[in-house]
Amino acid sequence: MSTGYFGDLKPIAYEGPESDNPFAFRHYNPDEVVLGKRLEDHLRFAVCYWHSFMWSGLDPFGGQTFDRPWYGDTMEKARLKADVAFEMFQLLGSPYYTFHDADVRPEGATLAESISRLNEIADYLEQKMEQTGIKLLWGTANLFSHKRFMAGAATNPDPDVFAYSAAIVKSCMDVTQRLKGENYVLWGGREGYETLLNTDVGHELDQAGRFLSLVVDYKHKIGFKGAILIEPKPQEPTKHQYDFDVATVYGFLQRYGLEKEVKVNIEQGHAILAGHTFEHEIAMARSFDIFGSIDMNRNDYQSGWDTDQFPNNVPELALAYYEILRAGGFTTGGTNFDAKIRRQSLEPSDLIAAHVGGMDACARGLKAAARMIEDKALSTPLDERYAGWKKPEAQAMLSGQRTLEEISERALREGIDPQPKSGRQEVLENVVNRYV
Amino acid sequence: MSTGYFGDLKPIAYEGPESDNPFAFRHYNPDEVVLGKRLEDHLRFAVCYWHSFMWSGLDPFGGQTFDRPWYGDTMEKARLKADVAFEMFQLLGSPYYTFHDADVRPEGATLAESISRLNEIADYLEQKMEQTGIKLLWGTANLFSHKRFMAGAATNPDPDVFAYSAAIVKSCMDVTQRLKGENYVLWGGREGYETLLNTDVGHELDQAGRFLSLVVDYKHKIGFKGAILIEPKPQEPTKHQYDFDVATVYGFLQRYGLEKEVKVNIEQGHAILAGHTFEHEIAMARSFDIFGSIDMNRNDYQSGWDTDQFPNNVPELALAYYEILRAGGFTTGGTNFDAKIRRQSLEPSDLIAAHVGGMDACARGLKAAARMIEDKALSTPLDERYAGWKKPEAQAMLSGQRTLEEISERALREGIDPQPKSGRQEVLENVVNRYV
Amino acid sequence: MSTGYFGDLKPIAYEGPESDNPFAFRHYNPDEVVLGKRLEDHLRFAVCYWHSFMWSGLDPFGGQTFDRPWYGDTMEKARLKADVAFEMFQLLGSPYYTFHDADVRPEGATLAESISRLNEIADYLEQKMEQTGIKLLWGTANLFSHKRFMAGAATNPDPDVFAYSAAIVKSCMDVTQRLKGENYVLWGGREGYETLLNTDVGHELDQAGRFLSLVVDYKHKIGFKGAILIEPKPQEPTKHQYDFDVATVYGFLQRYGLEKEVKVNIEQGHAILAGHTFEHEIAMARSFDIFGSIDMNRNDYQSGWDTDQFPNNVPELALAYYEILRAGGFTTGGTNFDAKIRRQSLEPSDLIAAHVGGMDACARGLKAAARMIEDKALSTPLDERYAGWKKPEAQAMLSGQRTLEEISERALREGIDPQPKSGRQEVLENVVNRYV
Amino acid sequence: MSTGYFGDLKPIAYEGPESDNPFAFRHYNPDEVVLGKRLEDHLRFAVCYWHSFMWSGLDPFGGQTFDRPWYGDTMEKARLKADVAFEMFQLLGSPYYTFHDADVRPEGATLAESISRLNEIADYLEQKMEQTGIKLLWGTANLFSHKRFMAGAATNPDPDVFAYSAAIVKSCMDVTQRLKGENYVLWGGREGYETLLNTDVGHELDQAGRFLSLVVDYKHKIGFKGAILIEPKPQEPTKHQYDFDVATVYGFLQRYGLEKEVKVNIEQGHAILAGHTFEHEIAMARSFDIFGSIDMNRNDYQSGWDTDQFPNNVPELALAYYEILRAGGFTTGGTNFDAKIRRQSLEPSDLIAAHVGGMDACARGLKAAARMIEDKALSTPLDERYAGWKKPEAQAMLSGQRTLEEISERALREGIDPQPKSGRQEVLENVVNRYV
Repeated sequence: MSTGYFGDLKPIAYEGPESDNPFAFRHYNPDEVVLGKRLEDHLRFAVCYWHSFMWSGLDPFGGQTFDRPWYGDTMEKARLKADVAFEMFQLLGSPYYTFHDADVRPEGATLAESISRLNEIADYLEQKMEQTGIKLLWGTANLFSHKRFMAGAATNPDPDVFAYSAAIVKSCMDVTQRLKGENYVLWGGREGYETLLNTDVGHELDQAGRFLSLVVDYKHKIGFKGAILIEPKPQEPTKHQYDFDVATVYGFLQRYGLEKEVKVNIEQGHAILAGHTFEHEIAMARSFDIFGSIDMNRNDYQSGWDTDQFPNNVPELALAYYEILRAGGFTTGGTNFDAKIRRQSLEPSDLIAAHVGGMDACARGLKAAARMIEDKALSTPLDERYAGWKKPEAQAMLSGQRTLEEISERALREGIDPQPKSGRQEVLENVVNRYV
Repeated sequence: MSTGYFGDLKPIAYEGPESDNPFAFRHYNPDEVVLGKRLEDHLRFAVCYWHSFMWSGLDPFGGQTFDRPWYGDTMEKARLKADVAFEMFQLLGSPYYTFHDADVRPEGATLAESISRLNEIADYLEQKMEQTGIKLLWGTANLFSHKRFMAGAATNPDPDVFAYSAAIVKSCMDVTQRLKGENYVLWGGREGYETLLNTDVGHELDQAGRFLSLVVDYKHKIGFKGAILIEPKPQEPTKHQYDFDVATVYGFLQRYGLEKEVKVNIEQGHAILAGHTFEHEIAMARSFDIFGSIDMNRNDYQSGWDTDQFPNNVPELALAYYEILRAGGFTTGGTNFDAKIRRQSLEPSDLIAAHVGGMDACARGLKAAARMIEDKALSTPLDERYAGWKKPEAQAMLSGQRTLEEISERALREGIDPQPKSGRQEVLENVVNRYV
Repeated sequence: MSTGYFGDLKPIAYEGPESDNPFAFRHYNPDEVVLGKRLEDHLRFAVCYWHSFMWSGLDPFGGQTFDRPWYGDTMEKARLKADVAFEMFQLLGSPYYTFHDADVRPEGATLAESISRLNEIADYLEQKMEQTGIKLLWGTANLFSHKRFMAGAATNPDPDVFAYSAAIVKSCMDVTQRLKGENYVLWGGREGYETLLNTDVGHELDQAGRFLSLVVDYKHKIGFKGAILIEPKPQEPTKHQYDFDVATVYGFLQRYGLEKEVKVNIEQGHAILAGHTFEHEIAMARSFDIFGSIDMNRNDYQSGWDTDQFPNNVPELALAYYEILRAGGFTTGGTNFDAKIRRQSLEPSDLIAAHVGGMDACARGLKAAARMIEDKALSTPLDERYAGWKKPEAQAMLSGQRTLEEISERALREGIDPQPKSGRQEVLENVVNRYV
Repeated sequence: MSTGYFGDLKPIAYEGPESDNPFAFRHYNPDEVVLGKRLEDHLRFAVCYWHSFMWSGLDPFGGQTFDRPWYGDTMEKARLKADVAFEMFQLLGSPYYTFHDADVRPEGATLAESISRLNEIADYLEQKMEQTGIKLLWGTANLFSHKRFMAGAATNPDPDVFAYSAAIVKSCMDVTQRLKGENYVLWGGREGYETLLNTDVGHELDQAGRFLSLVVDYKHKIGFKGAILIEPKPQEPTKHQYDFDVATVYGFLQRYGLEKEVKVNIEQGHAILAGHTFEHEIAMARSFDIFGSIDMNRNDYQSGWDTDQFPNNVPELALAYYEILRAGGFTTGGTNFDAKIRRQSLEPSDLIAAHVGGMDACARGLKAAARMIEDKALSTPLDERYAGWKKPEAQAMLSGQRTLEEISERALREGIDPQPKSGRQEVLENVVNRYV
């Protein structure tokens, strides 16, 4: 029954750090227990449909490089694609997957046909999910590839595009609900502008706010239990994307009263493009209590566009998972590989090797983070650094029981002359290096 | 009575576009009426104290290049500095100036002495303001240069630094109030972090929120009529500064319930460093109704630090003033030259020429923007682009009278198939070029 | 006989600065004489085939937005495309055009067929050139779009790709020669690497050096009188492109003994991506005596990829043309619009308006530059700044007639203590603003 | 005899990977033999004088944070500084150190006095070197901090500055020779421009070429056996620095006939600022046969200035040392820590911990690189990838025995149709992760 696409590759097994088998895990043992939880349950890996099954290798200067038997616009091809996708998910032992509507079904001639095709393929996916036990981490709608969305979906100057997008999102939420997806994601790839000269920013933000409110209301209406997640990105494809970074999204959510309803799906590459580290974005989301899920990949620090490479730098991954663990770990979220093999990586086995390496690197990072937490290696010095704020007078200032004048008077009265203390950055960096 | 520092330079006069006198205005005629208002009242120029009178030419790789007779740590030097500063303001015909406490008074041995010196020099400034008619656009406190602030002022892990900073800010607000300053600005140069390893971001944000609340409360207490302004910057000196950009500040203000109380002072160079255009930041502030004032300068797009150059690119300035005019123009705010001459520009006359060029470029930009507004050159096509949203059904969607399901049903029922329309970016760019 | 694609648009005429006709030149009067030469002969505008006739609006996140009747892979479509292209060149009054082989002919099933199709379409182009008087500024080969080039053309690890590329380039040089092209350009879009892990940089540089030598030898063999030009770009599509910038290309040319044989075609957007200004790259090429031609466009300073927008910032253009005029102006080179309309600019008229605006902005920039040269506005202060080097002892040092010891002895003997002089940057920037 | 500055810290010993002693090496065992050579002889660590003993914690927005007993402008302080410096070198077990003239002696009132002070302190250093066995990796001159160099040293518009600089460099070369320095380095911190408006780039390049020729001639004259090294940096402090990156320096050296005489000292942070990886720059230098030495540090990828942090990312270090080992390892060069502790790292022990962590990270990186080389983990697939070029016809093409026509004819005759092969980037990245 196998499509045979991956030849004689066997399901990837854990063989331990000494293995040099490129098709074995060296660090990801799903059943290893870390901080009281199985690794699989910590990491909650998901494999995405789009990069591995939709992208043809095309870039702005060149065309297709991959030959895949499932390329094409028919339902038959869509089913073949699903067959191969689930074979890959099984080979990798990935507990979850993710998709856009446009990844799994061919575009229809009409809105109605597009939706009906989505529903039809959802039946097929449902069946495969039952057969394999693979679950849906999240669903989402592609509101950026077709030219009708070129000037935005929710934020289009044409209200018909808003309406069209609403219909699409409804259908995707319905399917996500049916497939027991654990989250629903919105990435606003065209929700932004190319030039202020033709854009009414305030109007478009109100459109986006309304659209998101509609989504949240509908979620409650249908009893969807998962989280609604926004995925920030600063730019590309647009010159400016409204969901620039976590802090911007948080301001947006508050503006439209949605900060308790919506969380964020943070992508490493998008963080980098916004001028932040991945761990910064996670820490911000944690501080604002809107941390949801992550899109795991790696952006070239020196390429100014979204490179979506597979992660491999373990010290950096350790810092990211450290922030995730500090945020309590994933609840509905997970580690979704929003990563693509390079356009020169032509072999089916490259698809597998890339994910295996990424999963291993994540496992190594998470385990290092867990050990730092167990040892309180970073939290003890952190607590000491802020210890002054535990004192009653400091607490009184912080909680609003003192006025500016009162504080000023006390400072003058006591003649305070605060002395700087070492921030010990290098010492702490060395501590981290003991764990990675 | 003149210090003689600027030799025989005479007050800069408007001579018209054909003049090639480097010490004359070619475009800035304060009395020219544009959109019903004098240019001086539109632009509300201010000259800052710090770049021209405090900076010694030092950069990270080299020491002092300027020789200024007022360098030194005594009150006498502080008065000489004020003398020269006001001579420069008068030469330029700048209606406003701006300063930090540390610019105008030498640091004292104690907190009390620093404050008492500030108060003493404020008497001197008050006198000069009366004599010259030059006004204070805003005051601010330098909470970033002294080593006590190295790990933050309001966001320091040591609550004593918070208290010290509170006392300083109170004294600066008092002086600003006394000098009839029209705004009070907070730039959080050290309010951020160097490494997440030693930082509790959530705690520090709460500290910052509390500090700002204290400032707002004190403003009301003393009846200060000006605006409280936060000045966003993404990084430098810190790795990450909490007030990253306008959108981030807006989220922060909402989090602490201050979005009606505090506005932003937007700097061109800081916008650039955050990955935005200047006009973007102004447009965002306008959309959030928190536009306050601007720090005018120019950042080298290709240097990754704050270059604080004098503005000279008129087409870019026109777009910035266009957004300012769309926001209703300045109320309490103005155009503050947060710009410094290059460290190789050693001559006193360089200080004058730089400001003259900057003022002229701004005037030219504003006048171009005003003409675009008068002609509705950009607003007419903009209105047409969004005209669809004026229709009743569109308004119903936007105002929340339709659910996702209702919109979806209508979209399907009507079989909508939105057709993309040209965004006409190049045409609009050409329109702008007709005005600049 | 017209295809009718541009409707009733008439050839663009010069109407002067006061015109508000979007389809008229306001600054580009081809016959205006500047510095003793007609503007047309100064600017030597060329329109490129690829952006306007090949690109479909596709970007990494979305598909085709343009509908063009000539899209398709047949020779018939190729002829229709040429018809429309020449109509556009005529409407614009562009004296030159440029193309890649892949722009003008459909790919053949074999190498031989691709070449024979090129030759066939060249007949058609030749005819149109005769009919219209439009000339070929340069020809070039597309060695980057097809997947066979994914790992490089000349620098491919597979020598068969080198050979294939040699055959293609020979055919393009033959056609360029036949069409009386005035230059032949090589842009090495895939000549670089994605990862050092799979790349032998030294070997690949030797491959590139050999390839270029073959091209130069062939040029001489066939008596091609035009210049061979390399077009630098730092990255994109590759992680690192070998022809990073002008200085890198100059080092490369010297390494392979080609610095007298090959010049550079400098693109504004590529300069920006390399961290340089456009004028920097031109100044470098001038200093190395390898300035050839320019690809005119504009890169968003804040987008990290090649945005290829139409130029519109006149002050920047003035500085670029100032360097070009200092380099003696164009000889075989010209101003080629390597610029594309935004993917939302759907109308045929957008194609025209974009070029009109760009041509006007260039004309305005060149005229400002010419006036600065006539007035010696910048050259007089420059000469003064370096005047010390005209003195005999300085000349002796510079020309190698003094040893380090001799210079040191003299410095000590004379007790020299050099005093810094103002660099007058702001004054000079103000001077420029008098002209733009 | 100890200054007591580092309290009771003992010389850092190797304790193995399990140690959690922050003042022990966990990976750097100087006597461990790797690829047939002791680790100490591979890495050739040097500690620089400037960051640890000259920098006061100052940044563009704040003043001194460090209190060091040796700050001051007297010879006595200079000797105290040397005492502490050598104590630190000994604690760390660093075999080498590096310095600028301005680091070790106070500026004199005249050129002659500055030189005589340098010579005097050199006696003191010589003594300490004899006592401790610590050697000089390289000497250099600070031609960028004093305001006389503000517009360049060798490239100053004033020939007196050229002469002054020549005298300084001669004195530094003399001292380097006397102290048996193994290299002499030139970093052109001000050899560049701020604005093209006041700069004659071609003239300045000729000045730089002449200056370097004088240095090379003098080296031969005095029989200095070490290497002359240029240290590339793209910008900062200047807008553009002439020695932008390795490729630019290589072009410069060729232009002035010095490519056999001068090599490069590559700094990680400077590579990053130029848009390259560290390993890229090393690979380029290797390909051009100008690899000399490295300045080891780490630049924040997301700060646009020189952050000079201590290295800690082992996977990245492994790739850098891999390229160094491929280049044959260091000969006269070494691993110089051009790294500074953060300005908040106030404790003397922070200085030690930072270097310990850096040395350990380098040792770990080098050992991983050595294992990859031993296993041919990367070189075997690399050789396979380029194997086609070993064939006779490929060799004939590469060596120039075929013309473009001959290659084209063969390609057509054979009907070649090259098929792309997987670049296997992810597989190779996974291989690296097995070693780090």
